[in-house]
Amino acid sequence: MKTWDASPFIKFMGVNVISRGAKRSEAELVNREDLCNRRDVMHGGAIMALADIMGGMTASASLSPNQATATIESKTNFLAPIPKGDKVHAVCTPLHSGRTTIVLQTNITRGDGRLAAMVTQTQIVLPKSGSPATSATN
Amino acid sequence: MKTWDASPFIKFMGVNVISRGAKRSEAELVNREDLCNRRDVMHGGAIMALADIMGGMTASASLSPNQATATIESKTNFLAPIPKGDKVHAVCTPLHSGRTTIVLQTNITRGDGRLAAMVTQTQIVLPKSGSPATSATN
Amino acid sequence: MKTWDASPFIKFMGVNVISRGAKRSEAELVNREDLCNRRDVMHGGAIMALADIMGGMTASASLSPNQATATIESKTNFLAPIPKGDKVHAVCTPLHSGRTTIVLQTNITRGDGRLAAMVTQTQIVLPKSGSPATSATN
Amino acid sequence: MKTWDASPFIKFMGVNVISRGAKRSEAELVNREDLCNRRDVMHGGAIMALADIMGGMTASASLSPNQATATIESKTNFLAPIPKGDKVHAVCTPLHSGRTTIVLQTNITRGDGRLAAMVTQTQIVLPKSGSPATSATN
Repeated sequence: MKTWDASPFIKFMGVNVISRGAKRSEAELVNREDLCNRRDVMHGGAIMALADIMGGMTASASLSPNQATATIESKTNFLAPIPKGDKVHAVCTPLHSGRTTIVLQTNITRGDGRLAAMVTQTQIVLPKSGSPATSATN
Repeated sequence: MKTWDASPFIKFMGVNVISRGAKRSEAELVNREDLCNRRDVMHGGAIMALADIMGGMTASASLSPNQATATIESKTNFLAPIPKGDKVHAVCTPLHSGRTTIVLQTNITRGDGRLAAMVTQTQIVLPKSGSPATSATN
Repeated sequence: MKTWDASPFIKFMGVNVISRGAKRSEAELVNREDLCNRRDVMHGGAIMALADIMGGMTASASLSPNQATATIESKTNFLAPIPKGDKVHAVCTPLHSGRTTIVLQTNITRGDGRLAAMVTQTQIVLPKSGSPATSATN
Repeated sequence: MKTWDASPFIKFMGVNVISRGAKRSEAELVNREDLCNRRDVMHGGAIMALADIMGGMTASASLSPNQATATIESKTNFLAPIPKGDKVHAVCTPLHSGRTTIVLQTNITRGDGRLAAMVTQTQIVLPKSGSPATSATN
């Protein structure tokens, strides 16, 4: 973790990274007021933001220093609401690690252990020196 | 717009809602430092958060007072990076408005007019008094 | 299985249903010439067709006789090509079983055990007597 | 069209290709008995198969002879059922055409003009001589 600086967005969201690795990353996020919708559950957008943070940091953990990754697509299924004050736990693992693309799954579970969201996404591997022409993540 | 209170998450993200309606909503978001990844482009998670805000507020605009909506799934394709300081424009329109589900498309374009992301998502219509058992959005 | 008649499309595709249940279904499909693209691997369309068959029959296994299901959305990640002549194995399990929606995951593996595709989809529960107004599957 | 041989799967499905081009492709498919589910509407799997055929042939139309494409992900929203005997019309256009990835949207409409399904998918550009290690389509 020493060589990895969290992005401004990770700090903004308040994600607590527990571990980061190419094979598995884990993080926590407290569902504070800021992240809620008008019915006091975590906004779907906050859930997807957390998942994209997980995918980006897991995919980039497997790269050489002159490479970067960008999310090219992401799909989320929302399975249960996350109440205000709850602390969710996110685990990200790769389904496929290729030279060009990395496909990752992130499961987000509530404090009570129930699966709240499941995300699959594709990250593309880019040369870092290249223009960031297609890079949305990391 | 008078009867609609933006959620805490909309305020947290800093989304500027231009118009909200069941047939079309529009908003803007400045890509400030907070929303960036380590390469100074808007984080994919911020893009998805914006799109989910659009989908939720558009879907809920068509409901009666005793109904609510929740995102049940969302898919994003990322097409171009959004540089720091750019102001993106988001437009959301429904593809399908049923009694049970509302399917919406959100296009997010950069300041230069290029399409940066395209999102399709499904919102489910829920009774508001019911338990928020499956509600992740709004 | 006695009370379940396979649809015409299942027969057309040549899917061999091994077991069908609300908690888990399994099937096999030989990648015959008909299902191939021009480079002699299984066409992505055939893979998605197999997955949708799995989702539909698994979701409908949990219903009462006066209910039906329809796929409302489906997302597939393709992870490895399936050579001509190979026999793939598909396993479908629900991630969420609600009164209104059922979310299912189908994993399709090649003969050599490698994961070739991963599909998540949402099925909506409909009254059977109702008009088939939104029903694409089963 | 002279240099393009339809794949075995296109013939198996019975898709009638009206036009094929890198900017737009069109095709028709009659919803015959074979493609139906048990309620006499087109099976979701058949709809996705049609869309994947469209995406593959549109993406590959822009390639040089020593390149090929493969679908790496596909997402479908189903919006209206397609009755038996109806003839659907599919139109595929690219949302993004990059050197590495091509993102395409396919709209499938019923005979009465109603949008029945909307598909977005990503195709990856591969060297043809390379091993078909990740190629599921075309």
